[in-house]
Amino acid sequence: MNPPAPLLFYFDFISPFGYFASLRVEALAARHGRTVDWHAMLLGVSVMKVMGLKPLLDTPLKGDYIRRDAQRYMRRHGLVLKRRLDDPVMDPRAAGRAFHCVKHHHPALAVPLAHALYDAYWAQGRDLSTADAIADIALPEGLDPGWLRAAIASDEAGALMRSAVDASLKAGIFGSPTLVVDGEPFWGVQTLELAEEWLQRGGW
Amino acid sequence: MNPPAPLLFYFDFISPFGYFASLRVEALAARHGRTVDWHAMLLGVSVMKVMGLKPLLDTPLKGDYIRRDAQRYMRRHGLVLKRRLDDPVMDPRAAGRAFHCVKHHHPALAVPLAHALYDAYWAQGRDLSTADAIADIALPEGLDPGWLRAAIASDEAGALMRSAVDASLKAGIFGSPTLVVDGEPFWGVQTLELAEEWLQRGGW
Repeated sequence: MNPPAPLLFYFDFISPFGYFASLRVEALAARHGRTVDWHAMLLGVSVMKVMGLKPLLDTPLKGDYIRRDAQRYMRRHGLVLKRRLDDPVMDPRAAGRAFHCVKHHHPALAVPLAHALYDAYWAQGRDLSTADAIADIALPEGLDPGWLRAAIASDEAGALMRSAVDASLKAGIFGSPTLVVDGEPFWGVQTLELAEEWLQRGGW
Repeated sequence: MNPPAPLLFYFDFISPFGYFASLRVEALAARHGRTVDWHAMLLGVSVMKVMGLKPLLDTPLKGDYIRRDAQRYMRRHGLVLKRRLDDPVMDPRAAGRAFHCVKHHHPALAVPLAHALYDAYWAQGRDLSTADAIADIALPEGLDPGWLRAAIASDEAGALMRSAVDASLKAGIFGSPTLVVDGEPFWGVQTLELAEEWLQRGGW
């Protein structure tokens, strides 16, 4: 018998709601005997280029709602950020490249790295926009900072990132977080409960 | 002691998710000893004019997700529509005018009328774009079709609709449905559970 398919977790490191979901998806999957396959994507491509929208926080009315919703979520889940939602948005490509290089060459370290990157950016308020800044955070054991620095700058990293973004668009993914359960997409951290109900009932 | 404040329910008749929420908000409020104050607004003003966005279903990637999400919601809640989400969108102003005139002159009939309009449009697939079409649906008992037809066409109806839309924008409302619980806004039918938790716990 084949093991059940992993849940697919799509996220962008600059997405606070992606960060919130990253703290819950592993436990959610484990409750149902599943694993999670993590996919870093780029909202700058899906939202701004493909969908033609402006950034969420810059959208009149909706931006204020999102700020409030994030605060409400953090209070409910006991989270504290060292970064304000309105701080200038970092270029997430270096972090995305780091993730995809590690996923390609050291797959067992990819999720620990994603957690480390998310934690450094949102919980610690660190910069992750350059290879140097990324090599400088508390990396998962077994990941060499020098190797990572070079990997982020490599042509291969660019190709892996581009191909991951293309694949996410082809899969219809546009937002962070999106959790795909047996082909069924759930967009937004608010839908994690619904995704779990889908897992429990085997869909409807 | 004052009675507890009503929940504020903002909706547009052309919004399928607004329709879905309209079927649940009264029971939700009643479970917590609350009533609901209904407010018809216009997505064409908030989304297109103020936020500068295109209609949801016309947004690449997101449109497909929304179609799927609506189907998933309907299966889960046992709802069947006589109108496809992709059918041409009706001009909702006549229905909004009808609602606001009735709310102003026959307040006890406003919610029954909102249910009747939503049901006629989504569950029966009827047109509501003219005063004649609206006067022709199964109206709540006590509401005279002739009076309603004239009311919809009146200058007063236009003024009531405009003032309701202005008030909704001033309150920061942009989407349908939005439920406001003691000043706290919950946007989207997916957040009704969260709104209920807020009611239960008295916020957090």
